[in-house]
Amino acid sequence: MFYHDSKLQYKVRVEKPNPAFANMLQQAIGGIEGEIRVCLQYLFQAWGSRGPQKYRDMLMETGTEEIAHIEMLATAVALNLEGAPVSLQEEMAKDKVIGAVMGGMNPRHVLSSGLAAMAVDSNGVPFNGSWVVGSGNLAADMYANVMAESTGRLLATRLWEATDDPGMKDMLAFLIARDTMHQNQWLAVLEELGGLNGVHPIPNSFPQAEENQEFNYAFVSTKINDEDGAAERMKSSRWGTGQSMDGKGEFKVVPAMPKGQKPELAPPDPRGHAQKEQMTGGASGLVDKVKEKLT
Amino acid sequence: MFYHDSKLQYKVRVEKPNPAFANMLQQAIGGIEGEIRVCLQYLFQAWGSRGPQKYRDMLMETGTEEIAHIEMLATAVALNLEGAPVSLQEEMAKDKVIGAVMGGMNPRHVLSSGLAAMAVDSNGVPFNGSWVVGSGNLAADMYANVMAESTGRLLATRLWEATDDPGMKDMLAFLIARDTMHQNQWLAVLEELGGLNGVHPIPNSFPQAEENQEFNYAFVSTKINDEDGAAERMKSSRWGTGQSMDGKGEFKVVPAMPKGQKPELAPPDPRGHAQKEQMTGGASGLVDKVKEKLT
Amino acid sequence: MFYHDSKLQYKVRVEKPNPAFANMLQQAIGGIEGEIRVCLQYLFQAWGSRGPQKYRDMLMETGTEEIAHIEMLATAVALNLEGAPVSLQEEMAKDKVIGAVMGGMNPRHVLSSGLAAMAVDSNGVPFNGSWVVGSGNLAADMYANVMAESTGRLLATRLWEATDDPGMKDMLAFLIARDTMHQNQWLAVLEELGGLNGVHPIPNSFPQAEENQEFNYAFVSTKINDEDGAAERMKSSRWGTGQSMDGKGEFKVVPAMPKGQKPELAPPDPRGHAQKEQMTGGASGLVDKVKEKLT
Amino acid sequence: MFYHDSKLQYKVRVEKPNPAFANMLQQAIGGIEGEIRVCLQYLFQAWGSRGPQKYRDMLMETGTEEIAHIEMLATAVALNLEGAPVSLQEEMAKDKVIGAVMGGMNPRHVLSSGLAAMAVDSNGVPFNGSWVVGSGNLAADMYANVMAESTGRLLATRLWEATDDPGMKDMLAFLIARDTMHQNQWLAVLEELGGLNGVHPIPNSFPQAEENQEFNYAFVSTKINDEDGAAERMKSSRWGTGQSMDGKGEFKVVPAMPKGQKPELAPPDPRGHAQKEQMTGGASGLVDKVKEKLT
Amino acid sequence: MFYHDSKLQYKVRVEKPNPAFANMLQQAIGGIEGEIRVCLQYLFQAWGSRGPQKYRDMLMETGTEEIAHIEMLATAVALNLEGAPVSLQEEMAKDKVIGAVMGGMNPRHVLSSGLAAMAVDSNGVPFNGSWVVGSGNLAADMYANVMAESTGRLLATRLWEATDDPGMKDMLAFLIARDTMHQNQWLAVLEELGGLNGVHPIPNSFPQAEENQEFNYAFVSTKINDEDGAAERMKSSRWGTGQSMDGKGEFKVVPAMPKGQKPELAPPDPRGHAQKEQMTGGASGLVDKVKEKLT
Amino acid sequence: MFYHDSKLQYKVRVEKPNPAFANMLQQAIGGIEGEIRVCLQYLFQAWGSRGPQKYRDMLMETGTEEIAHIEMLATAVALNLEGAPVSLQEEMAKDKVIGAVMGGMNPRHVLSSGLAAMAVDSNGVPFNGSWVVGSGNLAADMYANVMAESTGRLLATRLWEATDDPGMKDMLAFLIARDTMHQNQWLAVLEELGGLNGVHPIPNSFPQAEENQEFNYAFVSTKINDEDGAAERMKSSRWGTGQSMDGKGEFKVVPAMPKGQKPELAPPDPRGHAQKEQMTGGASGLVDKVKEKLT
Repeated sequence: MFYHDSKLQYKVRVEKPNPAFANMLQQAIGGIEGEIRVCLQYLFQAWGSRGPQKYRDMLMETGTEEIAHIEMLATAVALNLEGAPVSLQEEMAKDKVIGAVMGGMNPRHVLSSGLAAMAVDSNGVPFNGSWVVGSGNLAADMYANVMAESTGRLLATRLWEATDDPGMKDMLAFLIARDTMHQNQWLAVLEELGGLNGVHPIPNSFPQAEENQEFNYAFVSTKINDEDGAAERMKSSRWGTGQSMDGKGEFKVVPAMPKGQKPELAPPDPRGHAQKEQMTGGASGLVDKVKEKLT
Repeated sequence: MFYHDSKLQYKVRVEKPNPAFANMLQQAIGGIEGEIRVCLQYLFQAWGSRGPQKYRDMLMETGTEEIAHIEMLATAVALNLEGAPVSLQEEMAKDKVIGAVMGGMNPRHVLSSGLAAMAVDSNGVPFNGSWVVGSGNLAADMYANVMAESTGRLLATRLWEATDDPGMKDMLAFLIARDTMHQNQWLAVLEELGGLNGVHPIPNSFPQAEENQEFNYAFVSTKINDEDGAAERMKSSRWGTGQSMDGKGEFKVVPAMPKGQKPELAPPDPRGHAQKEQMTGGASGLVDKVKEKLT
Repeated sequence: MFYHDSKLQYKVRVEKPNPAFANMLQQAIGGIEGEIRVCLQYLFQAWGSRGPQKYRDMLMETGTEEIAHIEMLATAVALNLEGAPVSLQEEMAKDKVIGAVMGGMNPRHVLSSGLAAMAVDSNGVPFNGSWVVGSGNLAADMYANVMAESTGRLLATRLWEATDDPGMKDMLAFLIARDTMHQNQWLAVLEELGGLNGVHPIPNSFPQAEENQEFNYAFVSTKINDEDGAAERMKSSRWGTGQSMDGKGEFKVVPAMPKGQKPELAPPDPRGHAQKEQMTGGASGLVDKVKEKLT
Repeated sequence: MFYHDSKLQYKVRVEKPNPAFANMLQQAIGGIEGEIRVCLQYLFQAWGSRGPQKYRDMLMETGTEEIAHIEMLATAVALNLEGAPVSLQEEMAKDKVIGAVMGGMNPRHVLSSGLAAMAVDSNGVPFNGSWVVGSGNLAADMYANVMAESTGRLLATRLWEATDDPGMKDMLAFLIARDTMHQNQWLAVLEELGGLNGVHPIPNSFPQAEENQEFNYAFVSTKINDEDGAAERMKSSRWGTGQSMDGKGEFKVVPAMPKGQKPELAPPDPRGHAQKEQMTGGASGLVDKVKEKLT
Repeated sequence: MFYHDSKLQYKVRVEKPNPAFANMLQQAIGGIEGEIRVCLQYLFQAWGSRGPQKYRDMLMETGTEEIAHIEMLATAVALNLEGAPVSLQEEMAKDKVIGAVMGGMNPRHVLSSGLAAMAVDSNGVPFNGSWVVGSGNLAADMYANVMAESTGRLLATRLWEATDDPGMKDMLAFLIARDTMHQNQWLAVLEELGGLNGVHPIPNSFPQAEENQEFNYAFVSTKINDEDGAAERMKSSRWGTGQSMDGKGEFKVVPAMPKGQKPELAPPDPRGHAQKEQMTGGASGLVDKVKEKLT
Repeated sequence: MFYHDSKLQYKVRVEKPNPAFANMLQQAIGGIEGEIRVCLQYLFQAWGSRGPQKYRDMLMETGTEEIAHIEMLATAVALNLEGAPVSLQEEMAKDKVIGAVMGGMNPRHVLSSGLAAMAVDSNGVPFNGSWVVGSGNLAADMYANVMAESTGRLLATRLWEATDDPGMKDMLAFLIARDTMHQNQWLAVLEELGGLNGVHPIPNSFPQAEENQEFNYAFVSTKINDEDGAAERMKSSRWGTGQSMDGKGEFKVVPAMPKGQKPELAPPDPRGHAQKEQMTGGASGLVDKVKEKLT
């Protein structure tokens, strides 16, 4: 269960409120690279954690920390919206700076939230639960987490570049630091799990002998008209030759080439009401076999 | 630009059509772990690729291959739907196997697509473009790709376990093999980019001196009532002590503790029509400063 | 900021795991009536709170409690999925109880999460941030909260009816109790804010003299062919006569009747490429006035 | 069934078309606070109405009226878009007012709808059917309706503040009045149903003896480090002491405290292909019991 | 504006309630082929109608009729849910027919709506406003409408096949008939607008001389390895030779062939924080020209 | 399966990068009228094609071509973003042209993609798989395709009007030409399938004698208060009189009039926990019949 402290994890100051920057900050709250995503992702991974208990513990710790980051950013959004223009008339004609700000604002910050943060991204697209990845495989989840912290830190550095408010830069410098730690933290788990060789291919519990042995370490080249020598460059790349990263195969480059048939489906089931003209043609046999089985 | 071959990349056979398995296969087509996602993800990363051209080339090659995987799975769905029950009456009362199958079917396979694949997942939730990650940072993108191929291979092995149709198992064994290669391939790029030490923290182009130096290698423990010694376990883990994975810091564990203030917002803008009772209270000063600026 | 305790707020026991019930529980996690919604709703309301500080405090307290409810339910889902059928073949043909369960399962519990909870509802539709309502008006927010706790308690009682597992019934009895409290709690705020007469019409800060005085307490009847005397019943209802609930008007019933014009738009802008046949007709005058202004 | 009148319910005039205001008006059409939502909500509640027929009648009347409100707003959007800039070049460099307007426009008003209203909100996010709440419980639905009319009236007053076009202000004054009535109307039903004491806790048909009796009237305080006396303020609030709003309990304040266990899940099902390293650890017993049952 | 009649447009009878069929009917309410879509589509097209007034009139008439169809289907859903199993225990183990029905039910019909229709499709995916097409071009809209009525009638015939309830078959026979009319009705408008030759290419107001004259009547063949003579079949098809359908060109078949360059983007903007390794390479010149302009 | 060529299908040049136009171009990539939609739509129709093989062939050809169109547009977006303002401070105050551009930019082009295209529309709303229509009925699909190419060409002409960059105009002139061809191509299939008379009503395989014979060629007029003679205009229109377009009936106009009953549902199931006050009233009989059946 959970407790709160009414103070913030780190101070949030805004010297020059900027409603357009408030909108940009929303990406770090409700966007796919944002804090609601990592918060729920780590917590759901913890709550579904099967296997050694220390991973559950760790995920709980960091998932809980992320709630505090949403809080900091939501506070920053509200502070950036203080004094925002709430009417189209007065300011529009007056001042080009304000005109530009208004173009960059989210109108719903005026209309829907009363100058406060919302659970949306910087296009106003609502947070979507499908982004919360917890696969039940610890290694896959760690990569999902490294990826989330990588795009998250990237976003934070871009926000840092986009503002010159010292308070905002300070807050972002804190969040950037946390993302540095979290990238390292998930990588540390991958090392504990055995590093590249021990971890891959994920899942490592599937008997690799069951996978197709011809194509599991082959770079398939789909290129036609290779006038600029790309094929050659592929062959000499790290992924085109030498031992595979997981140490379990040898990279090679092969040209794309069909190994399968031209697909043919049976004619439509009459009760599905295709056009009459579709009723002939199509593969036969399979559907008859099926019908037999059903009757 | 693109060309097609009317044959499949690998053969797709279904011996015993199973409409419930057709529904499960949809996850590999239109789900977040599925092939539409990786296909568009690699192609969009290629199309927006800035920097050394060989990464664009490679992403184009594999993005193009993934279209063929969508095709194989869409074919497999259609074949599994041959002869599916299209009416609730006839079969329902008859046969418990068919009853179970009907419960596991997607009714829209009957109602909307006429027994063919759709751009949805195995809950019928449509494919969502927000899953297509291309960040402009090559390393972040590679992690997004490793993650996609890890959850993708995991999904394919689970589908392999869920079926005993030899044709389906063979097709999945091919797709599992491709995911093995693709995991390795994106990891190979990360090695080329410098490995853990060269790549992290992502983005490596942000001057790390600008990030907060107190919290960038600290595991923040949010736990209260540590009766079972979790804190100790955190300290002795790979992420709790020793050199950080990126080689740029030393891990430590610190207890969560507020460094910020209790946030206080200004009273509401009267034109935002909060309740009258909210108009008093709140922080002062900031909003006045803002209003001054605006008038 | 936030802390966690590794123990649950209330005990979660499952005596007979039931994967179909696991799916039903998802509604209480990621559905519109669920706990992610109220959790984020109360926290976002707190973080954007303007006016007397005690409402921020209260919203923080309860928002934090709700995280613990998500946790309980996520745990309950995972426990109900222990031992779930992960393959279509083996069980399907065998046992009608299992067949029924499989029909009621979410296939993504097998394919995507590895038998753990996800941030989706019981149709697999992802949680959607648009459900998080925080309007900046405290009274409107309190109604949003009463509504959330009313549909939430309703959902919990229906889940209670749907199961006969004593552990699940006990957990739900706890959650039902919390929803009782929370309904009362938000209603208590409305009383503090002045009750019906003080609070309505929301927002109470808009000068009511500015609203249309002919239609603000009139029930508009849109019914044609009133053979069964509905009009009469409307007139004798609480909303058809007597003092209005906010004490500021007198209810009346009026028949629907157009007070406006038949709308006429100008012909299309030629650069918007309507069909040629649309270019004539339409209102004139307005668009000319506009064009004048623009040139 | 339904009929239409080609005249509007109330007149819609636009003196100075403003495409940025057209975009803001979209919130009142396709937004969560908008008219499509209430229209469908009241109609679906009517169509699913079980119990006394007069509530079905009333919901039909008002649901039908709301279609007319969508119509008025759609007309207002089209009129505000007359003469809008449809090209980026010409205007952009010329005039700062137009520049500001363009920033606030929805580009899809030019590209997709040909200067007409769409079923989206003011961020261009499409209307979403999940917002249509009809729970089958009349009291819960009435709160959903009061909430919808409260956020709806709030939105309308904010739009009223955002424009100085007299035609638009007049139309909004009419819509604000209707929302006043509708708030009162749904509250009147709640009074008819018994008021606070009769209605709550919703649903009132669940035997309250079945809910947990320790926590049904307790305010749970999750706060740590109470330096500013919030706990005391909670205790002296309306929700911290005295009779509960429903008259069925006594409010009290209790500190958050775990009553449950630290959750432990069984090890992963091997066919779910977690990493090998996860296969040990986890709770035992439960899963064995399950497997037994399945075999 | 709008009025209602408390009677249905056509009678709705259910002899044998079937909750699985209730779920299938949802596709015709909230699905992309469903009645909410056509209802809003015709009404939005009417409200945004520019040009001859009779098209607005016609769209209003039919849009209004469609509300009555939603009503009929919503009633049918509720009637099919009468007596549905609301608990997993009792029925599951008992009866294979009920087991099969439960698998085909939407659990939210029990949990969320209290056995009534919702604004979702038969996968529980909410209605989405993006499906409401109104382009401002009358001919494009008519095709959108023909398409909607074609997939709509197809859906209705499939529902007709899926049930053997005489009441449901009768209601569907009515809806199928209405779709026949509506297909014809939109086609009649296209004839009035000039038929194939007058209407196409849509929009007919764009000066066709401005479009590329080499590719406007060419079938581009992307096929590689034409072993089965598809190219020949394309050439002899109606679209491969002879006068084009709009009478303005001559069909031809040409092989796909790149007419463009290999794209090269400039190196990343340093403030976008790509990895350092990406900073070299890429096209030059363009970005310098841009930077010049900006400084 | 598929191959690629590293050159573009047609040249993409941008002389004056314009980030606001980059945003508008997104509509043609990830919007409902855009190229991802038609690409997936034609490919999924091909993959599910049942009946004569040449339609599968044709759909594959054109579906493959569309991938190249996404590529061209994605390239155009990236080129229009070269040198875009990535910070709010520097430019905002300086230059009104840039201010206007910033208002029209998608902030996620800076924050999320690093100045590259994304799988979203020009409001930032992600591509949605529900737009991919493949019904299993060839004629319905052809109308879906004509509609897609009609709104697609309309969009392209509007983009052509919105820019004065000669490179962009040239690229759009190519895409407009392709849409001309594709409209003609799908119409050619409809002619092959028998033209209006042979094709309609879609599906033509449903026995038309089964549909309601009273309403299948009747225009239903829902209008009240026909002061302006609309009814007369309807009667004299192509859809009000004369032979129907499919040649199978005679058009007529009839006034809307209820043929059905006032619907009455049974009282709520007690386990669904409606309010107690709802338990009386409602239809009887049906539910009893149902309960009988269940017990």
